[in-house]
Amino acid sequence: MASDKRRLPLIKESDLGLCTDLYQLTMAAGYFENGIEHTSTFELFVRGFPPKRSYLLAAGLEQAIEYFETMHFDDDAIAYLRSHPAFGNVSKGFFDCLRTLRFTGDVHAVPEGTVVFPDEPILRITAPVMEAQIVETYLLTTINFETLIATKASRVAAAARGKPVADFGTRRAHGPQAGLWAARACFIGGCTATSNVLAGSVFGIPVVGTAAHSWTMAVDSEEEAFRRYQEVFPDNTILLIDTYDTLEGARRVVELGLPVQGVRLDSGDLAALSRKVRKILDECGLTETKIVASGDLNEYRIDELLTGGAPIDLFGVGTEMVTSKDAPALAGVYKLVEQKEDGRVVPKLKTSAEKETYPGAKQVFRQTDSEGTFQRDILTTSDDPRAGIPLIQEVMREGKRLDDPLPLDVIQKEAKAQLARLDERYRRLEPEAAYPVEVSESLRKLTDETRRAICE
Amino acid sequence: MASDKRRLPLIKESDLGLCTDLYQLTMAAGYFENGIEHTSTFELFVRGFPPKRSYLLAAGLEQAIEYFETMHFDDDAIAYLRSHPAFGNVSKGFFDCLRTLRFTGDVHAVPEGTVVFPDEPILRITAPVMEAQIVETYLLTTINFETLIATKASRVAAAARGKPVADFGTRRAHGPQAGLWAARACFIGGCTATSNVLAGSVFGIPVVGTAAHSWTMAVDSEEEAFRRYQEVFPDNTILLIDTYDTLEGARRVVELGLPVQGVRLDSGDLAALSRKVRKILDECGLTETKIVASGDLNEYRIDELLTGGAPIDLFGVGTEMVTSKDAPALAGVYKLVEQKEDGRVVPKLKTSAEKETYPGAKQVFRQTDSEGTFQRDILTTSDDPRAGIPLIQEVMREGKRLDDPLPLDVIQKEAKAQLARLDERYRRLEPEAAYPVEVSESLRKLTDETRRAICE
Repeated sequence: MASDKRRLPLIKESDLGLCTDLYQLTMAAGYFENGIEHTSTFELFVRGFPPKRSYLLAAGLEQAIEYFETMHFDDDAIAYLRSHPAFGNVSKGFFDCLRTLRFTGDVHAVPEGTVVFPDEPILRITAPVMEAQIVETYLLTTINFETLIATKASRVAAAARGKPVADFGTRRAHGPQAGLWAARACFIGGCTATSNVLAGSVFGIPVVGTAAHSWTMAVDSEEEAFRRYQEVFPDNTILLIDTYDTLEGARRVVELGLPVQGVRLDSGDLAALSRKVRKILDECGLTETKIVASGDLNEYRIDELLTGGAPIDLFGVGTEMVTSKDAPALAGVYKLVEQKEDGRVVPKLKTSAEKETYPGAKQVFRQTDSEGTFQRDILTTSDDPRAGIPLIQEVMREGKRLDDPLPLDVIQKEAKAQLARLDERYRRLEPEAAYPVEVSESLRKLTDETRRAICE
Repeated sequence: MASDKRRLPLIKESDLGLCTDLYQLTMAAGYFENGIEHTSTFELFVRGFPPKRSYLLAAGLEQAIEYFETMHFDDDAIAYLRSHPAFGNVSKGFFDCLRTLRFTGDVHAVPEGTVVFPDEPILRITAPVMEAQIVETYLLTTINFETLIATKASRVAAAARGKPVADFGTRRAHGPQAGLWAARACFIGGCTATSNVLAGSVFGIPVVGTAAHSWTMAVDSEEEAFRRYQEVFPDNTILLIDTYDTLEGARRVVELGLPVQGVRLDSGDLAALSRKVRKILDECGLTETKIVASGDLNEYRIDELLTGGAPIDLFGVGTEMVTSKDAPALAGVYKLVEQKEDGRVVPKLKTSAEKETYPGAKQVFRQTDSEGTFQRDILTTSDDPRAGIPLIQEVMREGKRLDDPLPLDVIQKEAKAQLARLDERYRRLEPEAAYPVEVSESLRKLTDETRRAICE
């Protein structure tokens, strides 16, 4: 009978084993019972762009690595599985095997903050088939979500043309954990700060905040609300001025003569109001007081505001960014591309309708012009020596990470540098051209051969 | 400097204090420093429907209650806050206060699985202002997400017309935690099962699964894959038949003469393929073998398939349901509606552009006809005695829950019963009519009086 069996269902480290789809575990049992133990290689990639996207910003690798390092099945997890009717005919040996299972595979991946395109592997796992199978679900949800949001945030940051963007989205994210992870992805994508305090504590992202309408409403008057806030936060006063009437709010700030760093507009016609507020502030010499805008913003709205000359200095973006609202899912997939059988590497592909995959472990070479601008990518077999920057690097060997985590601001800078090397027409808000990803001769040959071998 | 400071950034119980927006904590400091300690009442409600929605199914209350019971600030949390520049002028007393802070408020809410409409409070908190403020962010993200997904799932379940729907969405959810919580919300909305094993362990939801293409590709032939799977799972064999060619896959099932419970189609033209597969199975007497369909399904697609007579027995729905892809955010808000000042209750409202709120603690009465069909809701002041079913009930008093959690299947049944009492035209996939929510005379009067008091 379905019921909430545990208080506060937050995922714990000891839950990570079960944090997968049942079929990964039934397949694992199938491999075990049939003595199938070969080493498999799976690749994670995106089949096609979500609407309006013309590049993706890879993210989530660090969380994936930490999952590989931690994932296991404790006694409670094993007990739950043994009680599930699907496993009624499965031998005790399988559960003993799960109990000691740790991820021992090799992982290759593109670094976080790398610009990637459809069909290009973001991550490749080579591991005993049972391990490679079980990790699929958690790996996909992690890379899919972080990449989705980093990509969206990079669009928002681009629209803001260098003006700072803060993530204000946790309240509309898909739960508190999604809010925390979104803050990380938004920072990678170019946001300068977040309102999520835990994201500051956990990731070191700068945390910003002002006050809400409830502050203004909690005291007797807007005037009193402004004065009292400024007293407590003299170096950090951004006053929300639209609780009752935005322009009166702005005049009140001026009349009070408070040394405030900024004012925030959260409703109404932001283009018109920001102009009028700027005028009110400037006429009284408050030329240094910044205007912060928030309220259902996204890359299109910000672009429109700045194109129209709205004097807004900082954007707070929430819902639209942390849910990637115009394209709220990334269809990353995880496909078997080869396996080792008796020392021989056998390439694999799926031929089902519209979903054919390229077989074999792959590499992507990125070719640039003399100024460093990306010209094209070559998707090829992993052993094909090519000119260009190889995007995929080894990050774990036999279950151990090879390098310390990169600091988030290093990832953010790398993402920014990469985007600067992508021709402007591939990063318009309304994409006009598709960046060229070419499939190499050797990969085409391998695909044909593999398809033929299956059809015979 | 931003960096991943902690391995595996999963939210822990001790993180719940910081799992909020900074401005909640700066306002809390503002209240503390100004000696503002009154009791405040906030209500959580949705301003308007997301596209295509004509009702909402409230969910997330249990997670919210567990948060209220658990949320606190430990030493690390306090140390982080003290290090944040915003709090440079805030006295030690505030941090001492935070260190012992627990939620001591009263909570009123509509039960999970209740059909609700815009402007109707889903939850009301009456607590010391500092507590009521700090909990806003976590509360919103929890109720917004669970309500969003329960609502979406109820549309998918309705489209399936009584045929079972399983949630297959974790891999495309907004991270693993969102996948787990989505499974819960999908079950409330009417799904019969999930593929997420942890959701089975934590919530007791039935967990289902078949096999993936990688299973078929891992062995020498499709025939071998089918036979081996059936041997390990004789009572629970659903074979995925589209890895190479769906109809050949179906014929292979028949030729092998395996006693399989079902076959799954995951690609191609599901309407045509399901018919052909049904014919192949039936012709060989496998009339009991079910057809499971998956692959980018949603309520519109399922409706189309069943309207066209596709012989599909069970639907696996992923991405579209767990991200509520056509409307991926619910704009629930949390607004101050009244506060107690010197024993006097003062109603509050915000008048900013297009965002005016109704003041005062409220109740919703639902009126039905003699057959129990919902006729209209009356949104009114909490002290207004009215005919009808009062939707809002007390669930916590002084920080303590009043009742044990409801079993999830009870919530699911209640949701189903409620939806059956909602006239069919208010639950079409393409809504045609708006269910009437009337604002009572007493609430209108209070709104006018409150607005006048502010404008004076």
